[in-house]
Amino acid sequence: MALVVHKYGGSSVADAEKILNVARRIGAVKDGGADIVAVASAMGDTTDDLIDLARTVSPEPDPRELDLLLSTGELVSCALLTMALRRLGYDAITLSGFQAGIHTDTMYGKARIHRIDPARVRSELAEGKVVIVAGFQGITDDLDITTLGRGGSDTTAVALAAALEAERCDIYTDVDGIYTADPRVAPQARKLAEVGYEEMLELASYGAKMHPRSIELGAAYQVPIYVASSFGDAPGTLIHQVAEMEGMENRVKVTGIAYQANVAKITVRSVPDRPGVAAALFEPLAAVGISVDTIVQNTSVERATDISFTVARSDLPRAIREVETGLAALGAAEVVSDPTLASVSVVGSGMQNTPGYASRMFRILAEGGINIDMITTSEIRISCIIREEQVADAVRLLHRGFQLDEEE
Amino acid sequence: MALVVHKYGGSSVADAEKILNVARRIGAVKDGGADIVAVASAMGDTTDDLIDLARTVSPEPDPRELDLLLSTGELVSCALLTMALRRLGYDAITLSGFQAGIHTDTMYGKARIHRIDPARVRSELAEGKVVIVAGFQGITDDLDITTLGRGGSDTTAVALAAALEAERCDIYTDVDGIYTADPRVAPQARKLAEVGYEEMLELASYGAKMHPRSIELGAAYQVPIYVASSFGDAPGTLIHQVAEMEGMENRVKVTGIAYQANVAKITVRSVPDRPGVAAALFEPLAAVGISVDTIVQNTSVERATDISFTVARSDLPRAIREVETGLAALGAAEVVSDPTLASVSVVGSGMQNTPGYASRMFRILAEGGINIDMITTSEIRISCIIREEQVADAVRLLHRGFQLDEEE
Repeated sequence: MALVVHKYGGSSVADAEKILNVARRIGAVKDGGADIVAVASAMGDTTDDLIDLARTVSPEPDPRELDLLLSTGELVSCALLTMALRRLGYDAITLSGFQAGIHTDTMYGKARIHRIDPARVRSELAEGKVVIVAGFQGITDDLDITTLGRGGSDTTAVALAAALEAERCDIYTDVDGIYTADPRVAPQARKLAEVGYEEMLELASYGAKMHPRSIELGAAYQVPIYVASSFGDAPGTLIHQVAEMEGMENRVKVTGIAYQANVAKITVRSVPDRPGVAAALFEPLAAVGISVDTIVQNTSVERATDISFTVARSDLPRAIREVETGLAALGAAEVVSDPTLASVSVVGSGMQNTPGYASRMFRILAEGGINIDMITTSEIRISCIIREEQVADAVRLLHRGFQLDEEE
Repeated sequence: MALVVHKYGGSSVADAEKILNVARRIGAVKDGGADIVAVASAMGDTTDDLIDLARTVSPEPDPRELDLLLSTGELVSCALLTMALRRLGYDAITLSGFQAGIHTDTMYGKARIHRIDPARVRSELAEGKVVIVAGFQGITDDLDITTLGRGGSDTTAVALAAALEAERCDIYTDVDGIYTADPRVAPQARKLAEVGYEEMLELASYGAKMHPRSIELGAAYQVPIYVASSFGDAPGTLIHQVAEMEGMENRVKVTGIAYQANVAKITVRSVPDRPGVAAALFEPLAAVGISVDTIVQNTSVERATDISFTVARSDLPRAIREVETGLAALGAAEVVSDPTLASVSVVGSGMQNTPGYASRMFRILAEGGINIDMITTSEIRISCIIREEQVADAVRLLHRGFQLDEEE
C-alpha cells in the first residue's frame, strides 16, 4: 500500500478549527487508500510562548530543561490532531518523538537525528491507523528529550519518510510553495513548480521557510518533498532531483532571491597571525552548538589580522562569551559586534561556471545605495551581508535586476 | 544521607514568582544537607485548561490521547522549577514519569502505579542533583503515557518516597494542613496536628484535598506524610501510624467532617431480582474505569428491585451509557439520574464499636431540615447523600453538633 508522510506547520494547527481542517485533509488521504503518517508542529506561537515562559524563571534556561519544556508543544498539537481524527471516525494514534523511535545526539536545542527505529510506527500503520508523530523532538540514548532546532518538524517528516520509504513527503504550511523571493518583501515574486535539492538548500539556508537539514536529508535519501498550503488546494512546489539536461536548459538564470534577517556579526581585532588561531576561535562555538555562517579573514603584513563572522542574533551573547573565553590564551584581542545585519542571496544552479553574476549583484546593490559589509559565495549562491533595514529593498532590487519579476 | 520527598501542588507553582519561591524552599533543604526529590503538579489551572482545549476538537477525547495531552502540564511546571533551581545555583534535573521509572497499568485517566524503577532517580541523586519529578503521570509497558487521575501527583510523591525509602513525604499545597472540616465552609474548623492513615483516608475519600490513593500507599509502606502550606512556615498535619493506646485515649470523638460536591446518583428501576444482576450492572463501569461510590439496593417482594449508586458527576454521561448497555440483556429496566447531590461524612476512629454516632448524625441533619437520600457507613465513617445546595449547612451543623467547634 502506498505510504505518504505529511507535515503540518504551527500556523496550520493554530486553533481547533484549523486542526479539524488538517484532520479532514489527512482523512481524505486515508479514504483514498494510502497509509499516512503526519508530523505536526506546535500550535501557532506555542514554542515562542514557552521560551518566554522559561525566561520568566531564568534568564538563560538550561538547554536540557528547555528542550523538555519545548517538546510539550508538539505533544499538545498532535494529541489534539489525533482527537480530531478520531472524532471524524478515523482510527489514529499520536506517537511522541521517543515513541516514534526518533533517536538523536545530545546537542540540546539543535539535536541531530542519529537513527530512526520505525517499528512502532509500522505496527500502528499495519493496524490500519493514521499515525501522528510529534515533530521537532527526539530522544537520546540516555532517554533524555531533545529538540531539533527551529523548523525541526520538517526534518522529522523527511527523516520519517526516508526511514519508512514513503513515496513522498508533503510539507503543508502557511505558504503555498517556494517562490523566487519572499512575496511579502517582493510582491512580484513567482511560485516555482519545481526546484532541485541543491538550489532549495541554498534558498532554505538563506531564508526560504524550510529547514535546510530537511532538504539535505531529502537529497541524501532521494525523498521528493512537496511544499504546499494547508489552507487550499493550489499547486505547490516539488523539491526533487532535477534531471541534469533539464537543469541546464531551464536554469540558465537565477532561481530565486533569499534573505535572512537577525544576523549578527562578531569581529575579533588584532588576532596574532599564526596557525591554530581560527581553531581556537571557532572550536568553543561549535562545542556549544552555535552555527557560524559567513567567515572573513584578511591577513595584513603586521602578522596580525581581523577575523569577522556572523551568527544568528539570538546566539550573539553566548557567542561573544565563548569567543572571549577561547581567545584568552591567544593574547589581548578585542571583540566587537554588530547585531543589526541581514544577508541577501542570489541562488541558481544556472550560475555555476557562468561568470558575471557576482559583479551584476554588486552593481545592483550599489545602484540601490546599499553598502555590502561581507561577501560569501558557494557553487550556486552569492550572499552579501548588509544593513538589516535595507534588506527588503535589496530583495526587490535583485528580484527585478535578475529578471525574476517577468512572467516566465 | 537523609532523603526527603516534597510535593508541590498546582497553586504552589502557578507563576514564575511562586516557582522561584518553591525553588528556594527546595534549595534550603539541600543546603541543610539532605537529598531531595520534588514532585510538582501542573501550573495553576493548566490541567483544566488542557481538558477544555481537548473539548474544542472533540466532545469526547480519546483517553489515551487525553493522557498524553495532560501529561504535558507537569513537564512544563517541572522544567520551569528545575530552571529556577539552576538559576539559584543548585544542580537540578527534571525527570518525566517515564524517565523516573513510574510504571503503570493501561487504565488511561486513572492509571495505577505497578512498580517504580528508581535507578535513574538514584543515580542523579548520587551525582548531587536535586531531582524534580513530573507528578501525575507514568508509562505503560508499551511505552504509552498514562495519568493517575485527579490529584495523582500526591500518589507519585508517596510512591516515590516508598520506593526510595525516604524519611518522609511532604505535601505542600495551598492549605496549611488537615482540618476538622473545610475551613471555607466551616469557619470554626481547627487544624489537626496529626491524624492516622485510616481516618485520613476517609477524610480524603470524602472531600479533604488529598488523593486517597496516596494515603493508602503511605499506610501500606508506612511513609509518614506531612501536609503543610508552601506559602509559609506554619506547622502542618502529620499523617502517620497513630499508636493504638494513644488512639484510644485521644480519639473517643469524631476527628472531622468531610464532604464531596459534584455527586451524581443513578437509579435503575425494576431490576429483576436474580443472581448476576449487580455484576451485569457494575462490571461495564469498572471496565471503563468509572468509580462507583455508595450503592443501595432493597429487594421488594415482587421479585424486582431498584438499585441506586453514586458516581462523580463528570462520569455521569458515560456511566448512564454503560449501564444501559449492560442492562440490555436483563430486560427493560428504566434508568433515572440526579446530578445535583453531595455527600457529607463524619469520620473518626473513635466511632469504632461505639454506638450512637449514626443516630446523632441523622438527628443533627433532620433538625437542620436536611433530607437524607442515601446512607453508607464504614468502620470509622458515616456518610449521607444529600442535596448539593445543603451541603455547606450540613458541614457546619455537624461540625458544631459533634463538638468540633470547641477549642481542644
